[in-house]
Amino acid sequence: MASVRIREAQEGDCGDILRMIRELAEYEKLSDQVKISEEALRADGFGENPFYHCLVAEMVAPGDPQGPCVVGYGLYYFIYSTWTGRNIYLEDVYVMPEYRGQGIGTKIIKKVAEVALDKGCSQFRLAVLDWNKRAMDLYKALGGQDLTEAEGWHSFRFEREVMKELAGR
Amino acid sequence: MASVRIREAQEGDCGDILRMIRELAEYEKLSDQVKISEEALRADGFGENPFYHCLVAEMVAPGDPQGPCVVGYGLYYFIYSTWTGRNIYLEDVYVMPEYRGQGIGTKIIKKVAEVALDKGCSQFRLAVLDWNKRAMDLYKALGGQDLTEAEGWHSFRFEREVMKELAGR
Repeated sequence: MASVRIREAQEGDCGDILRMIRELAEYEKLSDQVKISEEALRADGFGENPFYHCLVAEMVAPGDPQGPCVVGYGLYYFIYSTWTGRNIYLEDVYVMPEYRGQGIGTKIIKKVAEVALDKGCSQFRLAVLDWNKRAMDLYKALGGQDLTEAEGWHSFRFEREVMKELAGR
Repeated sequence: MASVRIREAQEGDCGDILRMIRELAEYEKLSDQVKISEEALRADGFGENPFYHCLVAEMVAPGDPQGPCVVGYGLYYFIYSTWTGRNIYLEDVYVMPEYRGQGIGTKIIKKVAEVALDKGCSQFRLAVLDWNKRAMDLYKALGGQDLTEAEGWHSFRFEREVMKELAGR
């Protein structure tokens, strides 16, 4: 009987992680925005001061000659709130379509909550697209609060060309 | 004639920064959420691996015996996008009410754009409350894109009690 294990990602997982980053962006209908490479993921997540941390979910089937198979991931980093100090931001959480409905996403989120508590964080945050009702319902069922709905927070982005103009370059 | 200077914050600015963090939270009608202390700001921003960086705006009046006076700040940190790698998040940008309308907020944002470009970031982000029309209009005028409006991103928060439940503690 196969079971799911959530573990910290290792550098060798970067190929799987990049594949799933692309799958997630496709699902979000924003795949043209993925510019990252496996090399960048390796360098940025596994150096001395990593820019991010990653959990992977793998299916473990005892006796399977192919070994465990990575079917999901949760990528997070530390942020800083001027109200409450150090917190976690869960940038991506993803489970491959054929493995959904088994609680793997929930397991990843629970692990993030554990890490956040262990690191003395008072909260963690994430962002979700409003048409992704399945994800929104899950986050609400797990106790997450929709700050955009409740308080009216809007997210803004300034891109490279705009930054250049602002910096006068 | 007084002029404005944007510079990197030093540890000795933390008292001023905390005062302005509280003023900003009051303006946002969320001042009950400020739990941070000056000690935490000092430890978290000015150690070996700082959790955040901060710019301050100060009014410099030549010959003023009181010296420069801090009238605004911009607090940011590095985040990680699985689409574009390392970026900046501008957590707070604030100018004291009596110094608004002089372009000080714009100066802070321009400086953030410079830092982001210098650090090889392809974008920076921030969040704003939807009733804060003055700020929203400024960000749009400076070229920022409202991702909540354009793409439907909602921000979620999981708080300590929820995290404990998720972690089974």
